[in-house]
This record gives sequence, structure tokens and C-alpha cells, in this order.
Amino acid sequence: MDLEIFTTGGTFDKIYFDALSEFCIGDPAATEILETARVQLDYTITPLLRKDSLELNDADRQQIRAAVETSTARQIIITHGTDTMIQTAKCLTGIAHKTIILTGAMQPAICQKSDAAFNLGGALAAVQLCPEGVWIFMSGRLYAPDQVQKNRRAQRFEAL
Amino acid sequence: MDLEIFTTGGTFDKIYFDALSEFCIGDPAATEILETARVQLDYTITPLLRKDSLELNDADRQQIRAAVETSTARQIIITHGTDTMIQTAKCLTGIAHKTIILTGAMQPAICQKSDAAFNLGGALAAVQLCPEGVWIFMSGRLYAPDQVQKNRRAQRFEAL
Amino acid sequence: MDLEIFTTGGTFDKIYFDALSEFCIGDPAATEILETARVQLDYTITPLLRKDSLELNDADRQQIRAAVETSTARQIIITHGTDTMIQTAKCLTGIAHKTIILTGAMQPAICQKSDAAFNLGGALAAVQLCPEGVWIFMSGRLYAPDQVQKNRRAQRFEAL
Amino acid sequence: MDLEIFTTGGTFDKIYFDALSEFCIGDPAATEILETARVQLDYTITPLLRKDSLELNDADRQQIRAAVETSTARQIIITHGTDTMIQTAKCLTGIAHKTIILTGAMQPAICQKSDAAFNLGGALAAVQLCPEGVWIFMSGRLYAPDQVQKNRRAQRFEAL
Repeated sequence: MDLEIFTTGGTFDKIYFDALSEFCIGDPAATEILETARVQLDYTITPLLRKDSLELNDADRQQIRAAVETSTARQIIITHGTDTMIQTAKCLTGIAHKTIILTGAMQPAICQKSDAAFNLGGALAAVQLCPEGVWIFMSGRLYAPDQVQKNRRAQRFEAL
Repeated sequence: MDLEIFTTGGTFDKIYFDALSEFCIGDPAATEILETARVQLDYTITPLLRKDSLELNDADRQQIRAAVETSTARQIIITHGTDTMIQTAKCLTGIAHKTIILTGAMQPAICQKSDAAFNLGGALAAVQLCPEGVWIFMSGRLYAPDQVQKNRRAQRFEAL
Repeated sequence: MDLEIFTTGGTFDKIYFDALSEFCIGDPAATEILETARVQLDYTITPLLRKDSLELNDADRQQIRAAVETSTARQIIITHGTDTMIQTAKCLTGIAHKTIILTGAMQPAICQKSDAAFNLGGALAAVQLCPEGVWIFMSGRLYAPDQVQKNRRAQRFEAL
Repeated sequence: MDLEIFTTGGTFDKIYFDALSEFCIGDPAATEILETARVQLDYTITPLLRKDSLELNDADRQQIRAAVETSTARQIIITHGTDTMIQTAKCLTGIAHKTIILTGAMQPAICQKSDAAFNLGGALAAVQLCPEGVWIFMSGRLYAPDQVQKNRRAQRFEAL
């Protein structure tokens, strides 16, 4: 396996039921996106969590870190909610011999206008090209975790 | 300007009229894809051609090469039909001090299941990370122009 | 004017911001749906309310009734949230000389798989064909307001 | 069975392969549209033909007529290419005790902006409400076959 993709929930995988339901997390949208793009890599998609990223706690982050550490893949992509993506990225620093890219979406993949497929495409290129370490691909750019912030009003990530 | 994106037509930008019309080339789909992703780069989209790539001739390829050479951007993305993308890529070798990524789509961006946004996301990451030279981003991988072929039956690009 | 379409919010027009935002009501999706279908009727779309239908109160329903009564159109469509659509339909009984169709959506129109366009198409045919009175078009059928219920678990409307 | 839906091809069911392929007819898009709308009718979808409607010949039209005549359903919908929909409709006149609605699409159902779901919703309402005979539902209106024309330039159907 070249690449393992861990999904943790967030807007990327959100689906809609009705007004009385919680807006909730569906199956990984990455599956269909990668099949549609006929990706020629030996990859596995591993669903880890199905949470809004505001609800992730320390135990969840330790679970993500343990999954990355024990993966046999040297290339790791994590789809993650945008609100705490930077926090999780910082928790993943110091894992040797792996390139780890976190990405997510501002609009759910099930919407007609979504950044999910674009962001996953960017993460997939980046994970093959970046040096070891932890990176965030959002808003068309690659950021180190300590040099980026989410601008919620403008619905984008930007340099600190 | 960090990045210039040249559009040349191809499946990426195909739109549908009716059965008596030719399936034809619309406005660059890259515009909406990059806006939806709120890309934080200083980029320009320059429509060069609106052709099925099977119809591109030598003059068209010289026009593409001249546009790349005279661009003030060091990072160049070209959206291109898949049937002759490799041929055009080979025509662009030897341009100094630029990173040039060609990408395209197997399914039009206007379709619900399209690889267009994914491929453009990958090209955008790649153009910021790759060394100078000409590269193709298709099927989730980065290829040198002389080491890739289109597998039309399987609807993908793959290593030679 | 043959037809007036009142929009009141509900899932039909819901859009997504981010995890910290409420899922909220956007511009009427009916506008684009009717333009895409190149509808050859003299119609007007009038946004009345932008609410989840669970939040509609008596004053809102009186506002809807007044708008219908004072409309110069004999054919009326109302897009409405599904949770209280039946209740609003019952509040509109007894308006003379008008055919009134309420419809909505189980999945937002912005989603790739939505029943919004299908339901609006059905409502548009029904408003031209039904006798005067108030009707609900959901789940592919036309119902009198006192002979239908929402089956929330099955995500459909069905006969009482 | 209340309703039988015959599919004959046309833009409604067109899918895209690549520039060297013919644009061709896929599986009936009606299947997914009706499931998404959770239609509460006892219906069957029967694929009859997979042709661009310009290629339909007299034998094809006789096949369609025979299928309608032998159907046990009193309500019939036919999805059909727009270029010869009116011609086929005229071939179906005189079948007793059935309401027959022909509809189609100007843009394929697989496209993000398509009139397919809207038109099928209208056809479904109309087939339950119209008197016996043959009708066309396009551009938001119900037409008798001898009182309608396709305006190809404007991409719509309109009254003669």
C-alpha cells in the first residue's frame, strides 16, 4: 500500500436528512471521488471517526495519531472538519518517515458546488510530492500547521 | 501573478446542446472550480483555444508554447483534452524557469460525476511543488510526458 | 400573470455554511429550476419567508394566506418545509377561484441527489390540471391536505 | 401496476465517454430520479430502446406502440428524445383507455443543470390527472401532439 486515507467526519462527509434530524456524517465521500478520478495508486480508505470536528476530543486525536503511526503506508491523507483541523495537525507532528496531509471541505461533497473533490485532488498530489512531516492543503495552498488559520467569515484558510 | 492557467478546450470544458448540435466547448470550468475552492493564490485564467484536442494542429501547439513562454508567471497550468495532452506536453519541453502542469478530464466538469475539479486541485498542488519542467497530472499521479500513455478503454492515464 | 410561486423556506431552499453556522435558507432554488426547464408560462416567484417550517407561527400562516388571496394569479404554487406543510395547507382551504399546490423537498435543491426539481415539476403540472382548492404534491402523488401524513422515518409523504 | 414508464433513449439518458466515442445512451436515469423522490406509486420502468430520437424509424415506433398497447397499466410515461418526440406522440393516438405522457430533456440527467427530473415530475403528475389520450409535457406545459413544436434555437417546446 502506497497511501492510506483516514476519514474523520467533518463537512467533507456531511449529509442531510431533515429539519428534525441532526445534519450527520455519511460514508466517506472520498471513495466515489477517487473512483471517478480513476486514481492509479495502491490506496486504502479507512474510516476512523464520524464527527463534526468541533466534537473531537483528546482521545479522538490520540486515536488518529495511533492510526497514522501504525499504518504501513508512508503517505497519509486525513479528511477532517475545518474547525479543528489545525489543532489535529499539530498533534501529529513528530511522526517519522511519513508525509501526512490534512484536508477538508467548506461545502459538503454531496452539494453541487463543493470544494471536496478539488481539495482531495490537491492533497493527493501533495502527499506524493511533499517532504516528510504534517501539512494542510486548503484554499489551494499547502500550509505548515503553525502558519495557517481558518478565516471563518471569508470561508477560507489563509497564512498567519 | 503567481500562476497563469491556460484553457484549450477538451472534455474538461465540454457542454451539451442538443442531438443536432456538436457537443461543444463552453467557458472555462476552472473559473467556478477555483472560486468554489476559494483559492488563495494570485492567478489568472486565460482562454487560449476552444477545441477538442484531436483537432489541435501544429499552429495551435505553437500558440500554446508562445503563450507559456511570454507569461510572466513562473507557475503554469494548462487544461487540455486528454487525447493529445501528451503530444502537447512534449511540445512544451525546454522552456526554462517554469513549472508547467497539464491536466484535463475524462468526464465534463458540468457532469455530476466528473474528475475535473479533482484533477485541477491536483494540478494546483503540483504546480507549487514540482521542479521546473513539464508534467501531466491525471489519474491521481504526476507523469513525465515521455513516461505516460492514455488507456482509452480503461478511461485512465497510466505509466508506460 | 398565470402563476405565482411563493417561497417560504424549508429544506427546498436550504444551503450550507459551516459547522458553527446554522444550516440556513438561501435564495429561492425555484428560480434556477424553472429557467433550466425553460418554462413557457407567465409566472412570478415571490419570496415570502425564509424559515424552517417548524418555526412558522400563526402570523406567518396568515401572511401566506393573505398573499395567496391578494395574488392576481389563479394558479398558486407554494414551496414549503415538509414538517408543517400539511398544517399550512389546511390553513389555506376555502380560498375561492384558485388552485393552490404546496410542495417541498426532502433533500435540499443544492444537493446532487435532491427531489426539489422533480417535485416542482409535478407541482407545475398539477397547478394547471387540478380543480380549484388546496393540494399537496409530494412523493409523486397529489394529496388533499386532510388525507396525507409525513412519514419521517421513511422520508416520504403517504396517504392517511 | 398503476404506471409503466418506457424509456427509449434520447438526451434524457445520454452519458459521455470521450472524444473518440459516440455520445451514447446509458441506463434509464428515471430509476434514480424516482427513487430519490420516493415515489409512492406502483410503477415499473421498462427500457425499450437506446437511441437518439433522430435515429428512430417506423419499426421502432411500432415497437413503442405495441408496448403501450399491451401494457397492463392504464397510465403510461415515455421518456424520449426531443427531436422526434412529437412524431412518436402522433403515432400513439387512438389507443383506448390509456393516458400517455411523453417527456424528455434538453440537457442530460447526468448534468448538474438538467431539466430531466423536473420534466419527469411534471409527467408523473400529468399522467395521474390528464384524461385519456396522448400528451407531451415539456417546457412546463402540457401539449396535444398536433399543437406543439420544438424551437431548437431557443431550446424549448412552444405552442404552434
